[in-house]
Amino acid sequence: MHMLEKITKENDIKQIERQDYPALAAEIRDFLIEKVSIHGGHLASNLGTVELTMALHAVMNFPEDKLIFDVGHQSYTHKILTGRKDAFETLRQYDGLSGFPKRNESPCDAFDTGHSSTGISAAMGYSIARDLCGGDEKVAVVIGDGSLTGGMAYEALNGLAQLKTGCVVVINDNNMSIGKNVGGLSKYLNEIRLGNAYNELKTGVESSLMGSKTGKKIAKVLKRSKDNIKQFFVPGMFFEELGITYVGPIDGHDINQMITTFQHAFRLDKPIIIHVKTKKGKGYGYAERHPDYFHGIAPFDRISGKVLAAKKTSCYTDIFAKKMVKLGETHEDVVAITAAMAQGTGLVRFEEAYPKRFFDVGIAEQHAVTFAAGMAAAGMVPVVAIYSSFLQRSYDQILHDVCLQKLHVILAIDRAGLVGQDGETHQGIYDLAYLSHMPHMIVLAPKNRYELEAMLDYAYAYDGPIAIRYPRGSAYKGHADIQTPIVYGKSEVIQEASGVAVFSCGHMMEEADRLVERLEAKQIPVTLVNVRFQSMLDTELLDRLMKTHTVFVTLEDTIMQGGYGEKLHAYLAEKNSPEQYTFISGAIPLPSVPQGTIPELRHHMQIDAEGLAEKIVPCYKKHLK
Amino acid sequence: MHMLEKITKENDIKQIERQDYPALAAEIRDFLIEKVSIHGGHLASNLGTVELTMALHAVMNFPEDKLIFDVGHQSYTHKILTGRKDAFETLRQYDGLSGFPKRNESPCDAFDTGHSSTGISAAMGYSIARDLCGGDEKVAVVIGDGSLTGGMAYEALNGLAQLKTGCVVVINDNNMSIGKNVGGLSKYLNEIRLGNAYNELKTGVESSLMGSKTGKKIAKVLKRSKDNIKQFFVPGMFFEELGITYVGPIDGHDINQMITTFQHAFRLDKPIIIHVKTKKGKGYGYAERHPDYFHGIAPFDRISGKVLAAKKTSCYTDIFAKKMVKLGETHEDVVAITAAMAQGTGLVRFEEAYPKRFFDVGIAEQHAVTFAAGMAAAGMVPVVAIYSSFLQRSYDQILHDVCLQKLHVILAIDRAGLVGQDGETHQGIYDLAYLSHMPHMIVLAPKNRYELEAMLDYAYAYDGPIAIRYPRGSAYKGHADIQTPIVYGKSEVIQEASGVAVFSCGHMMEEADRLVERLEAKQIPVTLVNVRFQSMLDTELLDRLMKTHTVFVTLEDTIMQGGYGEKLHAYLAEKNSPEQYTFISGAIPLPSVPQGTIPELRHHMQIDAEGLAEKIVPCYKKHLK
Repeated sequence: MHMLEKITKENDIKQIERQDYPALAAEIRDFLIEKVSIHGGHLASNLGTVELTMALHAVMNFPEDKLIFDVGHQSYTHKILTGRKDAFETLRQYDGLSGFPKRNESPCDAFDTGHSSTGISAAMGYSIARDLCGGDEKVAVVIGDGSLTGGMAYEALNGLAQLKTGCVVVINDNNMSIGKNVGGLSKYLNEIRLGNAYNELKTGVESSLMGSKTGKKIAKVLKRSKDNIKQFFVPGMFFEELGITYVGPIDGHDINQMITTFQHAFRLDKPIIIHVKTKKGKGYGYAERHPDYFHGIAPFDRISGKVLAAKKTSCYTDIFAKKMVKLGETHEDVVAITAAMAQGTGLVRFEEAYPKRFFDVGIAEQHAVTFAAGMAAAGMVPVVAIYSSFLQRSYDQILHDVCLQKLHVILAIDRAGLVGQDGETHQGIYDLAYLSHMPHMIVLAPKNRYELEAMLDYAYAYDGPIAIRYPRGSAYKGHADIQTPIVYGKSEVIQEASGVAVFSCGHMMEEADRLVERLEAKQIPVTLVNVRFQSMLDTELLDRLMKTHTVFVTLEDTIMQGGYGEKLHAYLAEKNSPEQYTFISGAIPLPSVPQGTIPELRHHMQIDAEGLAEKIVPCYKKHLK
Repeated sequence: MHMLEKITKENDIKQIERQDYPALAAEIRDFLIEKVSIHGGHLASNLGTVELTMALHAVMNFPEDKLIFDVGHQSYTHKILTGRKDAFETLRQYDGLSGFPKRNESPCDAFDTGHSSTGISAAMGYSIARDLCGGDEKVAVVIGDGSLTGGMAYEALNGLAQLKTGCVVVINDNNMSIGKNVGGLSKYLNEIRLGNAYNELKTGVESSLMGSKTGKKIAKVLKRSKDNIKQFFVPGMFFEELGITYVGPIDGHDINQMITTFQHAFRLDKPIIIHVKTKKGKGYGYAERHPDYFHGIAPFDRISGKVLAAKKTSCYTDIFAKKMVKLGETHEDVVAITAAMAQGTGLVRFEEAYPKRFFDVGIAEQHAVTFAAGMAAAGMVPVVAIYSSFLQRSYDQILHDVCLQKLHVILAIDRAGLVGQDGETHQGIYDLAYLSHMPHMIVLAPKNRYELEAMLDYAYAYDGPIAIRYPRGSAYKGHADIQTPIVYGKSEVIQEASGVAVFSCGHMMEEADRLVERLEAKQIPVTLVNVRFQSMLDTELLDRLMKTHTVFVTLEDTIMQGGYGEKLHAYLAEKNSPEQYTFISGAIPLPSVPQGTIPELRHHMQIDAEGLAEKIVPCYKKHLK
């Protein structure tokens, strides 16, 4: 590790001899494999971008220059090169190093990212701000080919064509999003990647770019080349048609070629797209062969490539996946849609069973939802499976295209609630708030694995917009014997007493059971309610429980605003005098939640069984007096 | 009007001789000009698509076939041709004919639209559903070139390239969105429009398409042509690069050419883009010359082209526009961004004054917001002016890119609250609900024109995500003398008494003043509060008012969920016994609101001064006892 030792702060890479860069790259890879094997994290994408990031760092100066990583899960090398190597001991841990760029972590991180396709827009903002302030810093964005399937990336490209100042857009083309890429653009980029016929012309364009001395001359040559090449089918025509200068594809593991290209590109006074081919997982055989498996990975054994954790019980995703296959069998009108999350949502099983009824639209949540609305309008029953946090991208489509038309679209919201170590940008804690104010939308959450299946049956039979939210992680098996029929708007009473009423939303039942145990150990009688319909109140039940209970507690996996507890509290307050009852919220009290394990996060927010019990016991006793 | 008389239901157009189509087109235009001149509505876009719609109706069968109008404001001819001519007497009126396609209005309306860029996604849904159900109906979508700047249209195009079944996408290219188009794609389409050099080749492609007998043969010819034309720069290369067959541009006012093209296009078993050139406002001189003015227009005199209503006092948009120029003068770091609403938001004035600091990104709300976030991260103070309803499209960007980073981006939300006659899809009634649960976001609303200016000053000085919402329509001048300084989180007391406390949000002050007058006429003492910070409570003030008031009333221009009143009610309830107070909500009680004039809508929902007074008076008296 002698090369890596020389890197203790930003720009140190410039002190290393160019001939030693390959050795440095090898050390970085080794470091990445080691650290991710211990802490888990994004591996394949980071292994793919080692040389690319090094080349950018060789050319840029930090923190003056601005480098944006679209999505951001490929910023590990950037973190190493900006003096955060030692912090990898705390990678993705509570209060530790983020797995994504964070402006509050380093001045070298220009823009926080997490969701896909935002980078070009942000880079354009930086470029224009630079010119308005009379600065001369370089601005670059690294964006994956997968991210280009997101609509907002196109909106930005459309704007980029108008930009009259320098802005370097590096397309990191590994022919993957989290999974296999889809769609016209992907096919197009792939053709470029594989194309040989155009090499001569391409080389011509590149050498004209690299050979010239000044930005103006380059621009002139480029313009001439562009006019010429428009006579032919050449790589990048798609971008050239939009009016953006394109260079590539170049080898994303050839540092020298990239450095030369970037040096010239940064001298241009207009935007340029540099198309770089990389290999996801590069340098670690297992990750090269299974880049999707090593995309985001738990701690693993680097020799065997196997994840260390003991084989888990089925997760909610598995239960969903299997149930979807069953639903598809009995109901020919069921179709399944996802947005680059076929593996992550488990819909690959549905795809295998019913390939004609499965649709992966790429990173295109907006299209996914309206496409589903179109199918629903035509009489099909679409199930759209998207992670909670990414579903935010389709807020308008859910409201405008599904809800206003009261269409029967089923949203299967995976990764709902806290997701843990990905942190702020990925927590699935806003979905209930943004869905439950939409016309006609109802939101359900299952208490255990069996109820997820029952809720999917219910959702199929329902006629209107309906969402079922469930978390990542193992599916709860508790209360397997309690499976009362699901009735519109009705909660399920697990046990009834008088004293403390605990309202558990969805998978929080696991935590709720621990809470009940704790309270009962203190001889406090507890009623336990499985909320089921998280977007509405079962007022009939509440009216009954109000007569016999003094403390009302919720366990929720969403922010307080727009949550179940907010509604419950308002109802209680409206019907009772303040001294008659106490309401204790177990919803998320923070506006956003940092990274950490889920138990850690709940503990810090005092919304785990222990934290809630501590609040409940004195309140219960107070009301006894 | 003898041609038009023959059209009383769908498919009647097929009974009319082809040679009479131009006469029918002329009659439809005359009808449109007359009806819109009386009722107001979208004129220019509808005049532009008369022949296009007729040609589609000549080829399609309704309601079996599915025709989707992206945005939908160009569907008037479709309504006429499907037997809704007489209903134009009630165009855009309460309970009357919608200005947009509505599935519940006619089985010939396949998909409700209103927001831009949704149409291709929905059409793909219909196409796939057809195949899965073994149907053979035709599916087509008409989408404007402006709508193609919206990211979700690209997401759909990317998917369209994969579609292995027929789906006809008609690009209605009038070189306009609501205003002038912007960006790379617009320039590109414009080059095609103006291009002459390619005519020969183009004609070749078209004639091969039109001349062949069967779909298969056409497909073969097209494939061959496609391979050939890839050797050259030809129109549509952009789409061909994505893998979608393209034909055009053809004359959108030449019915025969369009009919022939559509007939062949519908026989294809793969998607096709047909690029049709139309003239917005066609056939009515004023509208041809000023298509943006005649885009959505109030009742006008058809001889003079002048709007009938008396010159209005300044609207909020004007006040905003002027204030932005002032802000820009004193603060060099202020930049302004809009999404194809430069005219509508009044930012044209800012553009004139500071062209380098103004950015119209096209119909691209997502990009607009993250672009602003990038500038804010770089130290500028961006003001993003977008209509409330369209801002929904950038929910994720506001949350993920602005709020999580706590960036100082000012959202200027025009058309907030009820917008009236555009109906469900355009009401600006969800913004408070979706913004106020976002981290760090605060939402303000001005009571009158003067306060809008003060709030913009406040927003500039504030450091974080902040939104100011104001409605369309004339800016209130009441309470000009009351201009207390704006203090974070604090409401403003306009008058204080004891009895009924009225909380007015933003421009509802005009209605609130009417309410106060009514109540005072009945000797009821009224406190009037200008809420100002609509996303939070001024608990200090509330604690004081609770001691002296029994009835609490809100006037809001948003849905109840996530609204100010919901918070207020919860707070009152928490602190008081039910018998101590009555809460009366003047928020919008419906999940969505149909079309109608704003006073009408408020009246029907009983949230106008009269409706609220009726509820307040007995409650007040009850508490006196």
